[in-house]
Amino acid sequence: MSGEGRAAALPPFTLVTGNSDKRAEAERILGRAVDCAAIDLPEPQSLDFFEVVRAKAAEAFRRVGRPVVVEEAGLELAALNGFPGPLVKWMLEAVGAGGIARTALALGEPRATARCLLLWTDGAREVVGEGTTVGTLVEPRGTSGFGWDPAFLPEGEERTYGELPSADKDRLSHRGRAWRDLLAKL
Amino acid sequence: MSGEGRAAALPPFTLVTGNSDKRAEAERILGRAVDCAAIDLPEPQSLDFFEVVRAKAAEAFRRVGRPVVVEEAGLELAALNGFPGPLVKWMLEAVGAGGIARTALALGEPRATARCLLLWTDGAREVVGEGTTVGTLVEPRGTSGFGWDPAFLPEGEERTYGELPSADKDRLSHRGRAWRDLLAKL
Repeated sequence: MSGEGRAAALPPFTLVTGNSDKRAEAERILGRAVDCAAIDLPEPQSLDFFEVVRAKAAEAFRRVGRPVVVEEAGLELAALNGFPGPLVKWMLEAVGAGGIARTALALGEPRATARCLLLWTDGAREVVGEGTTVGTLVEPRGTSGFGWDPAFLPEGEERTYGELPSADKDRLSHRGRAWRDLLAKL
Repeated sequence: MSGEGRAAALPPFTLVTGNSDKRAEAERILGRAVDCAAIDLPEPQSLDFFEVVRAKAAEAFRRVGRPVVVEEAGLELAALNGFPGPLVKWMLEAVGAGGIARTALALGEPRATARCLLLWTDGAREVVGEGTTVGTLVEPRGTSGFGWDPAFLPEGEERTYGELPSADKDRLSHRGRAWRDLLAKL
């Protein structure tokens, strides 16, 4: 079933994110407008994606007062035994996508796993969608996407996330997979 | 004036930390027993030491209800433009002290800055002590100290934090300097 077909049957929710790129991806993947609250949720320090997304979901529901979806995504470098994972935004802020790739390459281990969790909750029940995409880090190429997209080459592809047209990225990206997993479970 | 002399004049406080090594260092540096509350405070994700220590101090005071000191320490890798900074505990958890050093060395830039902030607050007033120690990262040596101590060689020294006797480490360490700075301001 297509994302669009599933989306029609979804229970209502508000996507809580301060990242307009993530909202745009959600709308593309779901094939419809998504009610969104642009709130930057505080994130606890942790390497555990579930712990981070649960903390964000509790705070999001407290603030919004209706069913919410929150997202936590990150990048696990094999060269650093999974670090920085959910903390990748700070590594990106410090050294950029190129710096992340060059760190992995300097250590001789370019493999990385992109991971995304989406948590839907109505304050009582919670449903978690998860998506992972394995790949390798390369010198940044392309201007599509955002964040570390230009440095991530999904396995079996010759184009980085930053070079892939949106529809192709959504088909194989960690975030596309997480949304489809969430839709299948809701 | 020695740390011991100052310590006698300090206003009372409870050191709030879940890290017994940090408590031991404080008692050594102050030259007396320190009232301690072994609470693991939640830490917000940030590269800003002040932001992290302020969040911890507010929560510590809320829980303890009397004047507190909280600490935030970290390691800024020049090779990663200051990352991971306050997030170093997670890099340490993922790859150990040797992995941190090998990352810097692989990138051809071993310099690093160890930084420590100590914040005293009685709920109304706050006083911040800061200490930094510059050095280089090396293959771990020595069994003293804790965390990434064995991989950190302070500038002008031939012994890592992990090889230095406690008194020598305290004299030049970021944490020793932060305590003395706090004492001088209180």
